[in-house]
Amino acid sequence: MISKNQLKLIHSLELKKQRKKTGLFLVQGEKNVSELFNSDFEVVNLFATPEYINKNSALLSQKQLVSLTIESTAEELQKAGTLKTNNTVIAIVKSKASELPDIKNNQLVLVLDQVGDPGNLGTIIRVADWYGIEHIICSTDCADLYNPKVIAATMGSFARVKVSHTDLYSYLSAQDKPIYGAFLEGENIHKSKLVDNAFIVMGSESHGISEQVGQLITDKITIPNFGQAESLNVAMATGIILDNFKR
Amino acid sequence: MISKNQLKLIHSLELKKQRKKTGLFLVQGEKNVSELFNSDFEVVNLFATPEYINKNSALLSQKQLVSLTIESTAEELQKAGTLKTNNTVIAIVKSKASELPDIKNNQLVLVLDQVGDPGNLGTIIRVADWYGIEHIICSTDCADLYNPKVIAATMGSFARVKVSHTDLYSYLSAQDKPIYGAFLEGENIHKSKLVDNAFIVMGSESHGISEQVGQLITDKITIPNFGQAESLNVAMATGIILDNFKR
Repeated sequence: MISKNQLKLIHSLELKKQRKKTGLFLVQGEKNVSELFNSDFEVVNLFATPEYINKNSALLSQKQLVSLTIESTAEELQKAGTLKTNNTVIAIVKSKASELPDIKNNQLVLVLDQVGDPGNLGTIIRVADWYGIEHIICSTDCADLYNPKVIAATMGSFARVKVSHTDLYSYLSAQDKPIYGAFLEGENIHKSKLVDNAFIVMGSESHGISEQVGQLITDKITIPNFGQAESLNVAMATGIILDNFKR
Repeated sequence: MISKNQLKLIHSLELKKQRKKTGLFLVQGEKNVSELFNSDFEVVNLFATPEYINKNSALLSQKQLVSLTIESTAEELQKAGTLKTNNTVIAIVKSKASELPDIKNNQLVLVLDQVGDPGNLGTIIRVADWYGIEHIICSTDCADLYNPKVIAATMGSFARVKVSHTDLYSYLSAQDKPIYGAFLEGENIHKSKLVDNAFIVMGSESHGISEQVGQLITDKITIPNFGQAESLNVAMATGIILDNFKR
């Protein structure tokens, strides 16, 4: 059974302020929790149905999670969680400090400027994982990695791709790799020379890349438009650009 | 002011059954409504704030919509509409019959099998419009084009891309163009010969392409995976595949 205090804690973790204060976040649903078990994130508590616990008993023992697991009904989980479709498992997990990565040579790094929508950030993390991107650097006003909507949209990729938040202007000013940036009036990406050892900056749909960060872009690129839509969603544009870099 | 009966009608159009019965649907928000005005869809009523009406008075006269426009407050529009962020304008519009298109030669046609999520269908219509796709053929269990979430996600592209629903097996059986289909174990799309005069079939994320439709696929294709994500969202995959066909 989920106690009143546990329920209160789970609900509080929907708020960034509380996630920051407690250093905890939620991972919900079978797919995301199974990816969590493959990572080095530390689980504090696991709430799960008897069926889930039975099915995963070997794994839970191996991960030393048996004593941290609390049997719950589907109804309790439905009430506690933020996802419409999850009534199987919720984990409370320790978050990690947002550290700037050591970037290897010949590594593409994704940079997000003002991507505030959690669904977009999560979808970008997922497609970055598909294309083997290890690091995403976000502006401080991007969505919080530990927002439940971000975690849900990553479909488990949150456990692999490293996401940090920092001041992009200072960070990128200190770099000497090419810095590609997506603009509506950039060079046709189908015809551009795209190198692997670079940063790719994506701006938000409504504001684009901020002026300050824009000054640091060495190569403006664009996805050519064959029809009449005025723009693409930022997650979609990121996926298409990564495909062009990786082909 | 929005009358009680009008409010009831607007709310009822959230339901497919009522949209079918009345032959009406909703278009909400400035961007989508402005694209609506560029199309041949017939507006039945327009609910808008005085500011919107002022700003667009010339256009409303030209479109002979003045007598069909009902001045409303932002609060009324917020209550009536289904979108969190729209409190400016809502249109009630006549839907069109779902007719199978005449397909020209050298035209790529997108085919969606069991894409039930309205957000995905809307995003696919938007990216199809970006790549100049004129026709999308959906299986009968795809989301309804006139679902408010579909229309919202198209960002106006619903007014340009023609979407029809039909039995895919019968429809595709009668075609003699190549039929590409996205599978996890298909040929690497970066290395495939992709011709413009073809159908591209995309299945749902959870079920893929149905077995029956799968039998009609002439070319199985796949987006190569450079990392560890298990799959891509169907809208994302559609965008990346269209980019590969169009490059």
